[in-house]
Amino acid sequence: MSVIYQRVALIGLGLIAGSMAHAMRRAGLAGEIVGTARSAETRKIAAEINLCDRITETAAEAVQGADLVVLCVPVGAMSAVAAEIGPHLSKGATVTDVGSVKQAVVDAVAPHVPKGVHFIPAHPLAGTEHSGPRSGFAELFDNRFCLIVPVEGSDPKAVADLRALWEGMGANVEEMDPDHHDLVLAVTSHVPHLIAYTMVGVADDLRRVTDSEVVKYSAAGFRDFTRIAASDPTMWRDVFLNNKDATLEILGRFTEELFALQRAIRTGSGDELFDYFTRTRAIRRGIIEAGQDTAAPDFGRTKASD
Amino acid sequence: MSVIYQRVALIGLGLIAGSMAHAMRRAGLAGEIVGTARSAETRKIAAEINLCDRITETAAEAVQGADLVVLCVPVGAMSAVAAEIGPHLSKGATVTDVGSVKQAVVDAVAPHVPKGVHFIPAHPLAGTEHSGPRSGFAELFDNRFCLIVPVEGSDPKAVADLRALWEGMGANVEEMDPDHHDLVLAVTSHVPHLIAYTMVGVADDLRRVTDSEVVKYSAAGFRDFTRIAASDPTMWRDVFLNNKDATLEILGRFTEELFALQRAIRTGSGDELFDYFTRTRAIRRGIIEAGQDTAAPDFGRTKASD
Repeated sequence: MSVIYQRVALIGLGLIAGSMAHAMRRAGLAGEIVGTARSAETRKIAAEINLCDRITETAAEAVQGADLVVLCVPVGAMSAVAAEIGPHLSKGATVTDVGSVKQAVVDAVAPHVPKGVHFIPAHPLAGTEHSGPRSGFAELFDNRFCLIVPVEGSDPKAVADLRALWEGMGANVEEMDPDHHDLVLAVTSHVPHLIAYTMVGVADDLRRVTDSEVVKYSAAGFRDFTRIAASDPTMWRDVFLNNKDATLEILGRFTEELFALQRAIRTGSGDELFDYFTRTRAIRRGIIEAGQDTAAPDFGRTKASD
Repeated sequence: MSVIYQRVALIGLGLIAGSMAHAMRRAGLAGEIVGTARSAETRKIAAEINLCDRITETAAEAVQGADLVVLCVPVGAMSAVAAEIGPHLSKGATVTDVGSVKQAVVDAVAPHVPKGVHFIPAHPLAGTEHSGPRSGFAELFDNRFCLIVPVEGSDPKAVADLRALWEGMGANVEEMDPDHHDLVLAVTSHVPHLIAYTMVGVADDLRRVTDSEVVKYSAAGFRDFTRIAASDPTMWRDVFLNNKDATLEILGRFTEELFALQRAIRTGSGDELFDYFTRTRAIRRGIIEAGQDTAAPDFGRTKASD
């Protein structure tokens, strides 16, 4: 693999930026990696662990001379960061992001991108429940998807370079429109996260079941929900505020179907429950066949937790 | 470890019974393991893979001379099986089960257990999304909980032997009342499963998002739901029909909280969302500290699916 960008500026140094730094180094994709974060503590840790080649105090400094700028901040902070860096971007540079919603990011960032700079939003579908500069690792994107969302008139060469970067970091790249992206993610990610947060909240509220019982017996199914519900609160607040329409649409469908199943339980309609539960197995098989998961029981968790 | 029961009869040969057979053999806990299943195909496979020492055609035959009888059938089938084996049980034997609800099993089985036979319900909190006689493995119960639910007047020696069996198969044993068991499991398992089934059903229904998109991009959070929702439909139908009250109570609380969060999204109440999402992180930390999961990112899934 050879260098694609001479200088990459990472704005924000959390899980995704940190993993990008490790993955770019693994494959030698960047000449120099410059990083910055709003918090002095984050910058200090990043310097200590040598996460980037250079750490700057401000985003304006970080982007100077960079041919790729990656916005790795929560969606709600994109507009302010774009306004700050806009005047300092180099002609011919590419600005991209890693936000979990795309139309809102296009609206927030595009107005601040000067003529002659390419703006190509993107979203790597990868993450863990951990956050902060120490949480990144080079393998995070391996065999995961990265969705690139070119805006109208995107320069084909700039898009091809960004695609090569993500492929070099291990991801499978697909292109998608911002609106469709936001709907697909509402189904596959945003609403599942909201539901997981809610279920964990319910367990926490319940006086007749103690917290320690919930914790002890979590392996019965609940554990997967707590993992999802431990993700970064700021990031998820911004996702829901900025993908409101698609989230509310999918939530509406969800509660409709949940009420139908609830009624089947109340009325003892066993056949209806059985048919519903049978139908959902097919999707699971599709996911295993697509290589996005393994058929191994419990994903080898027993071993991982030894 | 030494033999605790001279002859163990497994009624039903799915994931749990199969795993018990492997785990009992691993530790030498049973003199002889006899198995039976209603389906001739299941009995044939079990014989082929040498799952038990002996396979019988009927449950009545299987329990003859057994000092431990384990009912490993769906909760809805417990009453019929208990009625069939009742007259054939040996005096001094113990009858137990592995069902996911407990009060309904007590109601279904107890009337058929003759005087002089001990009935001690139990529930190992372990499983995968696989089912059938080939799905079992010896490690399934290692470091997982098994809840024993002694009914009034249970013989202490009989309870101690059953506890020793489960501990010998790797589980941590706790005792609990049937009603409390059913409520705790509604929170930690039954309602999470129903929600996962519903979310997967919603994804399947959505015309504007294709099945292949749902499958491809499942790693964004949805994947955990599909694993849960791929579990055995018969088992889960029976769980919901037989733990109706606790399930409906927890579902009611769930929809209340979900509506509150939905309203916060609609009205743009970022602080409310942030506070809610922050609170749920604490439960996750408790689960990792309790050793019921690992803090490793993504549970080493990346490696498992290589």
